[in-house]
Order: sequence, then C-alpha cells, then structure tokens
Amino acid sequence: MSNIHRLREALANQSLDGFLIPKQETTLPHEEHLAWLLGFTGSMGLAITLQKNTALFVDGRYTLQARAQVADPSVSHHPLSPTDIAAWLRDRLALGHALGYDPRLHTIAEAKRYAALCAECGATLRPCADNPFADIATDLPPPPAGEIRALPVRYAGESSADKAARLRPDRDTADAIALDAGDSIAWLLNARANDIPHTPIVPSRLLLHADGRLDWLADEARATEELLASLPPNTAIHPPHAFAEALKPLAGRRILLDEHTAADAMRLALEAAGAQPIHAPDPCQLPKARKNPTEQAGARAAHLRDGAALCRFLAWLDHSIQTNDLPDELAAVRRLEAFRQDTGHLQDISFDTIAGAGPHGAIMHYRASEETNRRLANGELFLVDSGGHYLDGTTDVTRTIAVGAPTPEQRRHYTLVLRGHIALAQARFPQGTSGAQLDALARLPLWRAGLDYNHGTGHGVGHFLNVHEGPQRISKSGDVALMPGMIVSNEPGFYREGHYGIRIESLLLVTAAEPIDGGERDMLGFETLTLAPFDRSLIDAALLNEDERGFVNRYHARTRAAIAPLLSDDAERAWLDAATAAL
Amino acid sequence: MSNIHRLREALANQSLDGFLIPKQETTLPHEEHLAWLLGFTGSMGLAITLQKNTALFVDGRYTLQARAQVADPSVSHHPLSPTDIAAWLRDRLALGHALGYDPRLHTIAEAKRYAALCAECGATLRPCADNPFADIATDLPPPPAGEIRALPVRYAGESSADKAARLRPDRDTADAIALDAGDSIAWLLNARANDIPHTPIVPSRLLLHADGRLDWLADEARATEELLASLPPNTAIHPPHAFAEALKPLAGRRILLDEHTAADAMRLALEAAGAQPIHAPDPCQLPKARKNPTEQAGARAAHLRDGAALCRFLAWLDHSIQTNDLPDELAAVRRLEAFRQDTGHLQDISFDTIAGAGPHGAIMHYRASEETNRRLANGELFLVDSGGHYLDGTTDVTRTIAVGAPTPEQRRHYTLVLRGHIALAQARFPQGTSGAQLDALARLPLWRAGLDYNHGTGHGVGHFLNVHEGPQRISKSGDVALMPGMIVSNEPGFYREGHYGIRIESLLLVTAAEPIDGGERDMLGFETLTLAPFDRSLIDAALLNEDERGFVNRYHARTRAAIAPLLSDDAERAWLDAATAAL
Repeated sequence: MSNIHRLREALANQSLDGFLIPKQETTLPHEEHLAWLLGFTGSMGLAITLQKNTALFVDGRYTLQARAQVADPSVSHHPLSPTDIAAWLRDRLALGHALGYDPRLHTIAEAKRYAALCAECGATLRPCADNPFADIATDLPPPPAGEIRALPVRYAGESSADKAARLRPDRDTADAIALDAGDSIAWLLNARANDIPHTPIVPSRLLLHADGRLDWLADEARATEELLASLPPNTAIHPPHAFAEALKPLAGRRILLDEHTAADAMRLALEAAGAQPIHAPDPCQLPKARKNPTEQAGARAAHLRDGAALCRFLAWLDHSIQTNDLPDELAAVRRLEAFRQDTGHLQDISFDTIAGAGPHGAIMHYRASEETNRRLANGELFLVDSGGHYLDGTTDVTRTIAVGAPTPEQRRHYTLVLRGHIALAQARFPQGTSGAQLDALARLPLWRAGLDYNHGTGHGVGHFLNVHEGPQRISKSGDVALMPGMIVSNEPGFYREGHYGIRIESLLLVTAAEPIDGGERDMLGFETLTLAPFDRSLIDAALLNEDERGFVNRYHARTRAAIAPLLSDDAERAWLDAATAAL
Repeated sequence: MSNIHRLREALANQSLDGFLIPKQETTLPHEEHLAWLLGFTGSMGLAITLQKNTALFVDGRYTLQARAQVADPSVSHHPLSPTDIAAWLRDRLALGHALGYDPRLHTIAEAKRYAALCAECGATLRPCADNPFADIATDLPPPPAGEIRALPVRYAGESSADKAARLRPDRDTADAIALDAGDSIAWLLNARANDIPHTPIVPSRLLLHADGRLDWLADEARATEELLASLPPNTAIHPPHAFAEALKPLAGRRILLDEHTAADAMRLALEAAGAQPIHAPDPCQLPKARKNPTEQAGARAAHLRDGAALCRFLAWLDHSIQTNDLPDELAAVRRLEAFRQDTGHLQDISFDTIAGAGPHGAIMHYRASEETNRRLANGELFLVDSGGHYLDGTTDVTRTIAVGAPTPEQRRHYTLVLRGHIALAQARFPQGTSGAQLDALARLPLWRAGLDYNHGTGHGVGHFLNVHEGPQRISKSGDVALMPGMIVSNEPGFYREGHYGIRIESLLLVTAAEPIDGGERDMLGFETLTLAPFDRSLIDAALLNEDERGFVNRYHARTRAAIAPLLSDDAERAWLDAATAAL
C-alpha cells in the first residue's frame, strides 16, 4: 500500500476529506511528513491530499527536482503560490468537506487564509490535535533530544537578560508576548540546538511578560548548565506539555503575537486560556535581523575563515581540472566540507551543499546523491552553493566554475549574471528603500538580453541561526526597508535547463555608506562580506564597462590581501594570485 | 476678516469643529476652495481647518511653493502623506468633535480612512450636503457651462458603443457599474469638455447597466450635436440634479463601484437608493491606460508635431542666448505656447507651463507670474516643463537648458540625471513588472553620488485627457504591472534649492520589445515618444559609458531625421543639426 493510501485511510478514520502537509526549512525531522508521503526532499513545499487528488506545490527552485522525485502520475505539480493553492482547492473542495491541518505546523495567517477558502466552498477547515501522520509515518526519526546550549555573549553581543529587558512589552500595550518561532527564541535566549539539521534554532514556546518574567516551555534536561546559568534571572522553565497550564494565569490578559510567525496552535491555546490576542509583528524580528557590532565583527571573521576554506577548495578543484583528475559531485562536496572542518571552528554546514555539475547546475537546489552523482566533465560548468555555521556567524556563498575552456555563450551568460551581481553590490540608496526596489538592479543586464531567473535575488541570513531569515529580502515581494546591520545575499543566476546553471552569490552587510564627495544625503550601501574569487575564465571582460571591471579588480585585490595570509600552502597561494589577477 | 475666519464662522453655523479642503488636478474652478482659503495654487494638496489650527499638506513638488504662497504663521506645513495627515489629526481631534467634509470631493476610500481616524479619537466625520464654502467663497467663477464635444473615432480608435458593449458588467457579477470619474466617462463616451483648464475630462456621473443601457447625468444642452449623435444607442441623458431619481430603479440591485476613484457622494446616494455596492476597480481604468493602435499612432503623430514646435522654441532660445538677448520666463512661456499654436492642431496646453530660470528651476511645479518673473541670466540653468493636448494625443516634456557656459558641477548633475533617464528608457523587463521595480533604475546614478529627487520618476498620461493618469506609475508605490500600450513619463531630476533645477522628461510607450538575439523570454520595453534634443553643452560625455553615449547619439539622430523635414527655417535646421551632432 502506498503512503498516500495509508494517509487516506488515516484521514477516513478521523472523518477528514483532506489534509494539508506543509514543509518548511524549520520542519523537525520527526515531522518530515511531506518527504515521507511523496519522497520530495526540498526545503519548502506543500502537499494537499484530498479523497481523489494529491497536489504538490513547490517554488521555482524546486520545479525540476519535484518532477524528478515525485513521478507518481496521481500527484499533480503546481507553483507554490497562494493563488495557485487557492485555485486548486476552489476547484475541488465541495459543500460539507472537512479539510484537516495540524495547527502546530501552520502560522495563524496561513490558517486564516485556508479557513476563508474553505468557507467560500462550504467546506470546513478542521484543526487536528492528533496529526494523522503520527500513526502511519512510524519510520520517521524520534523527536529531538539533544543538547540546547548557550551562545556566549562574546559571540551574541548582548546578554539574554538585556534583550528581554529591552523587548518586554509596555504594560499599556500588552501583558505579555507569546513566541513560538524557534529562531526568535534562540536569539532572545542566546541559545542554540541541533533539532533540525543545519538550522540551530530552538523550537519551543516562550512568554515574555511585561514585568520582565519569562516562561520557557522546553525540556530543562536538554539545557546545558552554561545555558541555564545564562538565562535571564526571572526565567521559569516548564515542560513543553505543560503549556495549557502555563497559560492559565493569562485569562483576560492581552497577549501580543505575530500571526505571520506564530503557529495557529498558539492562537488556539491562548483562546482556550481566555487570553486576548493582539496581533503585532514579532518584536525579535528586526533586532535579530539588524546585527549588532559584535555580530557584525563576527560575520567578518567568519567570512574570512570560510573564504580561506573555500579558496583552498577552489585551488584543489583547479588543480584537479588542470591535471584532468576530475572529481564527481559527491567527492567535491566531501572535499569542500573537509576544508571547512579544517578551520577548526565549523559548527555545522549551514545547508546541504549544492554541487551541480553540467545540467545539474540548472536544478536550483540540487543535492547530489549516489543515484544522481555526476563526474565533472570538460566543457561543462560546476555550480557550488554552500555555507558554514560558526559561533561568530553564518556564511552562504555560490561560485560557478568552468571545467576546462568555457564556450563563448557560457562566458556571455556568466558575465551578464556578474554584471547584475555587481550592480546590486555597488548600489547606494536612501533610508526607507526596500529590497523590492533594488531587485531589478541585479536582473537588468539579463532582462536586456531577454533572460531572467525564477528566484528572488537575495534573502536575509541569521547569526548561527536560519540561513534564510526574514523579514528583509531582495525580491519583488521584499517590502521591508533595508537597515544598517542587516545581512542579505546577492545571488542572481541564469539557468539553461538540461545544460548548465550559473549563480554568483555573496553576502552583503547593509551599512551606512561612506560619505560621498559632493553628496547631499546620507545613503546606505552594502559591504560584501564574502571573500572568494569569481572564475576569471568565465568573465568576458569586453562585456564589462570600466566601472564594473574596477569593481572586480578591487574585489579580487581585497580578497587576495585578506585570504593569502591564511593559506600555508604555496600552491594554494599561487592559485589565489592567479585567480585574483587584474582583468 | 481673513478667509480662514470666514470659514470658521461658516463651520460654527453648521456646528462643525473642522473641515477637510482637498485640491486635486480635477478640482473644478468654482470649487477651488483651497486656493481661495490659503492662496496655494498647486495642483494637489489638502488643507484641514480646525477651531484653532489650519494645516496645509502638499507633496514634495510643492513644498517650497506652499511656503512661499502661504506665509500666514497660523498655518502649519506638512507632507501630503496619509501618515502625516493621520498624526496631525490624532493630536488635535477630541471626543465629540465633528469634522465635516464634502462627500463629492473625496473618494470612498479617503472618506473611510478619515472616518476611522475620527472614530479612533471619539470624533465624528460628517458629510456636508451644503458645502460651507458655497456661502463664503462667492468670488470663485461660476460652474462650467461650456460645450461637451465628441472625440471622433478616427482619434479614439473605438466607438463609445463598442466600449460600452465591451465593458458592461456580466449579469452574474453586477446589475450596473456606477462611474463618476470624469476621465473614465470622457474615455467611455468619447467626449471631451473644457470644465477644468488643460484637463478635458467630463465631470459627470454615469450608470452602465448589464443590459447595455446607459444613464448619463449631464446637462444635455451642453452636448454638441455630433456628440449626441455618437453616443451609444441606449443612452438616456438626465439632468445632474436628477441623480437620486435615476438611482431609484436600482433598489436591491448590485452596483459595481471603485472606492479609489468614485466619490463618497456616490456611495451615499447608492445607499440611500437601497442599492448594494460591490467594490471593484473602475473597469475603464486599464483599457483607458492601454492605448489602442489608433491612439498609439496618434501619440506618435502628436509627439512629432509637438517635438517640432519645441525644437523651434529651443532654436529661438539658443539664438536669444547667442545674441545675449535674454528673455524672461513669461516671454519664454508665451513664445513656446505660440510655437505650439503654430502647429494649427493645439487644443490646449496640457498643464501650466513650468519655466524656471535659475533658482526657480528648483521649485518643482513653479509657475511664473508677473511677481516672480525672472530674466534668464548667463551661468544659470533654465528648466522648461510643458506639453500640449492634441486630438490625437497629449504630450509632456521637460528639457533643461544652460544659459551660457555651464559650470562643471551643473554638467555633472545634469549627466547623472541623464544617466538615470537613459537607464529607464533602455530597460527591458518581463510581463508583470511594476513601476515600483523600475523606479530605482532612474535613481541609481544619483544615489551612488549621494543625491536623489523627492518625486516619482514617472506618471501615466491620458489621450487628450488627464496629463497625469493612473493606474500605472514609475515610483516606489507603483504596484501596477506595466502593459503594452501604456504611456508613462520618464522624468528623473535633481534640485539644488536656491540655485537650479534639472529635470529630463520624455514620454515612453510600453511595447513588446523586439526579439533579442539569444533571448529566451518575451520582454517588454519602452519606445521613447518625445522628440527633442538634450542640451549637449550640459552633457559631460566622460561620465557616460559607451552604451549610454550610444543611446544619446541614436536618440539625437532619430530626432534629427524626424524633426528636420518639419522645419522650414534654415536657421532652425542648422540649430537642429548642431544640437543633435554625435557626442
């Protein structure tokens, strides 16, 4: 019996006509229901199973991968957009249907949207305290039980007591703030866990009271001594299952919660306790996104260390190419991770390394496996998107490498992507400018060539937290103003399906731009944190203007000066010199 | 007694604590209450008079002008933004206050916003059927009584009967559409009036029924025979005061109306009639914005004719400068309007010509008067923003001219503005791209120099209608996708208060871009409609890259080829040759 059939049986037992099966970057391993159901292993997606249909919704990064992994003809494939989801449901939900969902796995805003959709069709959205997967997906791993440890203040830059004192609600506004976003809680408590691979957030629940008290719903036995000692003085720890009890004193009180980050289960629990929810943005979001001076200095140190590891990898790769001793994708991934381990500071890679040779580079979030593993080949491109978590910061970098001599077309496409990357990196912009306003800068060279890419240009990056972090982003929908201290990626790309993928990604720190000669207004700008050469053999310098050539040469000179002292191997230093020579 | 005191008396008689006094580009001359009250003559703004305070809200274009025209220390000045208006009212409205407004002069959405604000403060927003200005502003002109005439189909491209048949609502959606936007009605009926200077819209009300009937509330005596003969066959004309009666048959019916364009008076009247309003975008907006092939051909013809007139003016101006016979602003305005009249086709100028010499150029919507009139002077810049209405289209063009030799700084600033203008003109972009995404392209060269301008980059332009027309625009708030057939302005600028203003404006037609060699996706692009040289003496060619120089040279060559045949004067042709010589 297929897993879809097992799910339908379980749904029938609960008198449900369908179920929502979400997958987020923060999904816990024991709740990987979507992968269990369909075999899709992408980091984001949504499946909906109804009595007769199953649909899988994924974003542009995963379109090809989803079709490759989910070949079952009874599953239809769709873009992961509220419009497409709504249209699909509207066509299929009928009067009296009950659509189930696990309220712990959807935000309040999402649940509202589904509830409205169901109401439109005469159907009902039903929260399921007992997730039907619990009884059938028994081969998933057990719930996390590892350590929850402290991130010392020398890395975090501010004690959790100071953060809590700064963020506790004003009594006039609310009596408490309710949080269940694992990244907000990790940031607030200066705590990190290993519950989710490559994502050291702390999935749990927390109440921050106006009087400064904290109630943290977490397994105290998992917390290290160091963490327990560093928590704000008025912190009470309650077992996770005691949540309803912990909420009892909140009857009649006004509780702030963010309907875009808080789980619908939190709303239901607060309502059951008789508390009055007040919707407001998660107060941790902006302070977490705007790195403090310690975090900024840490990010620079992490990028220097990580850049040296990446340069060692690129030198090794270049040697393999020169000697025609070409590795396969998995060997390259192992080698790159080994160079990062060699730094002695790596906590974890920050996401599954994407190492796409030839046509695999066009699969936006490709992950090499024994089945797909491909040896690098002359005339092809090799796209490597990878990153590391360090206590002082998180990296995320993509470089695309030519194996042997690239074709003129590959060089032209690479140079167009590079021009967009440079335009964004060099942008200056006034306070209040959002990522949506800047996104086109990175696309324009491609647009003018009749080309584009189906993903955003940049995402926020956490400090040893989520490698994809809000609220800011550089994309059409990035309506949050960029502010000093925020980190965003700059990753335009170009993908020729079946042939190759090109992406050039560096992380940018938003800074108050240096005063400009003759300038009248304070501008913001970007400091490129990432230090790793672009492949010079892929740059068609004739397509760059003087300004763009100047950027590449300055960036390469800076990279050389920073990285060379960290390389002890002569061959690696020689490679770096050649790789960063002026255009 | 000041006019503010007269207003306060009139408000007291109606037991009002305050009143909203809006000014739009479509305000009728007999309702120019804001100008009457405060002397501010800008095209947009809002005054609010309370018992003790009066505030004037204007946008960035009018900041300087408002302070110059309204020196009364009891009037405070503020930016025209919903946030600023809300903050000002919140600080001053108190429990029990009644704030009055004329529901004919505010959209439904505006009235809703004010009502919510008042409610927040315990105050009431009260619609006034009797506008208090009616009794006091008796020196304003009488209501319009001029002809309403037909725009023949050879200019409009589609008969009003065809438009009505195409747009009438589907019976499943609504029983009728209610319109009171003067531009929508003018477009739908192929009618034009002279009620508002330079704005040939037809202020009136109209019902378009699902069965194809039209009820037009307008003074039949004002309509020309040609217009009456060209109206859709099922059109009934009712006197404007018979509106309530015309609505009676709509009791219980569903009526579409656009809360962002329809006046709140329309909502009140429909509610009084017992009709059920359904909020939806004005269905005329997009078809009006997307010019049909006849309108596009007309726009090209109008721009050629208008470009020749502007070139004759620029040649005359250059001669005046060369012979040191420098005109003053008003003389230049008269001369420019005379050249447009000479075309034999001018219906009206499309807005009050802005001719700003020296520091006046920094006043964004400066209008020269006998009091402010300034003679051009060597070493200064002269900014001329003007346009014409023709039956086949509307123009709007700004050129900035150096009087004598410009300074290196003037040339640098001009060239930065020009680079932004070129970046937008050359943009290619996929379907679905909004003006908000493109706005930064025109600003980036200035941003990188620490400079900016406090206005949007571009506005839509009507076909012998509003020179500022929605819904598309190129600005931070322009969230409507650009579509083929839309016309937008491209007008970045730079303003050094007290010294000079620079603006370079051409109109752009959104087109399906020509197929691009090696391109994979259909792109949209712009065709620059405006034909008039940039001042070569202001271009610092060393600051342009090759691509930008190529744009200027191609544009100048195209302008010369198009305009030269229309110039009969040898001196004008010689000027054109010199003005369009390659950089």
